Amino acid sequence: MEQKPRIAIDMDEVLADTIDKFIEVYRRDHNTEILLQEMNGKEFHELLPDTLNHSWRDYVNAPGFFRDLKVMPGAVDVVKELCQKYDVYVVSAAMEFRHSLIDKFDWLADHFPFIDWRHIIFCGYKIVDVDIMIDDRIRNFTGFKGRSILYSSPHNFYITEYERVDNWTNVGDILL
Amino acid sequence: MEQKPRIAIDMDEVLADTIDKFIEVYRRDHNTEILLQEMNGKEFHELLPDTLNHSWRDYVNAPGFFRDLKVMPGAVDVVKELCQKYDVYVVSAAMEFRHSLIDKFDWLADHFPFIDWRHIIFCGYKIVDVDIMIDDRIRNFTGFKGRSILYSSPHNFYITEYERVDNWTNVGDILL
Repeated sequence: MEQKPRIAIDMDEVLADTIDKFIEVYRRDHNTEILLQEMNGKEFHELLPDTLNHSWRDYVNAPGFFRDLKVMPGAVDVVKELCQKYDVYVVSAAMEFRHSLIDKFDWLADHFPFIDWRHIIFCGYKIVDVDIMIDDRIRNFTGFKGRSILYSSPHNFYITEYERVDNWTNVGDILL
Repeated sequence: MEQKPRIAIDMDEVLADTIDKFIEVYRRDHNTEILLQEMNGKEFHELLPDTLNHSWRDYVNAPGFFRDLKVMPGAVDVVKELCQKYDVYVVSAAMEFRHSLIDKFDWLADHFPFIDWRHIIFCGYKIVDVDIMIDDRIRNFTGFKGRSILYSSPHNFYITEYERVDNWTNVGDILL
């Protein structure tokens, strides 16, 4: 059997809309409106007023934060199609936040049930042996010798060194 | 900075004594004594009487099963020393059992606090880009091009194709 090329797909800001959740909880809990269009080149927490600057860590460390994230538009259909042509792995740096492990596991079972457990990787450093990596964090491309595809997210707006996709339609266009 | 060689170290039956836990729960709950010396070449559940044959799945799927496993003798000291010479990752196929994720995370924090979250990988297929892999399951060596070191466990007793270690003293002898 011919080996399909392997892809590693990131979760936060690639499959799951984590920034949307941050905007929502700060609107709800702190009456603070963070605008996506002001976020270019910055991390979400850098836009918070000083008094709230570190509170984002409380959110990501709490059970449930990663459980109800919205799926990025088109992600399910395109990933399903990618599975025909590629050996698809979901690779998330979930290990940073203890409770995110089970939240992310359950979230994937809900939205991407066609990705079986053998193709899910929760890690820190992404030392995966794959051919293609789709990620919004360029630090995950360090030392990676395959094809690095940067998924657009406000924080990586000004980075120009990588092949870039803006959305899942783009991913389908270049990989299908 | 010179890059240290990377090692992937498995958890069950390598860092953690999962079989000891199985023996203990079947003794406690089912008055069934499984002897380690009868286990050569077999999986633990194959030694169970027919009526109990599938019950082991209930144990591994329950919260807490992987939380209180004994550490393999010498593992902590040798892994600590390995960290000086190698870039050490703990790589476990934890994704098979939902509740094992947090149990294994907490277990590692207790017994191997010097392994930071960036060096922990929970996965299914072990597609890791490392130089050395220490594992008791030869299926994890499939497609791996590095140095495969088989950690002795009853189920792999008759396998002769791999470099083998019987305990953590052995690991220290060949890698330190």
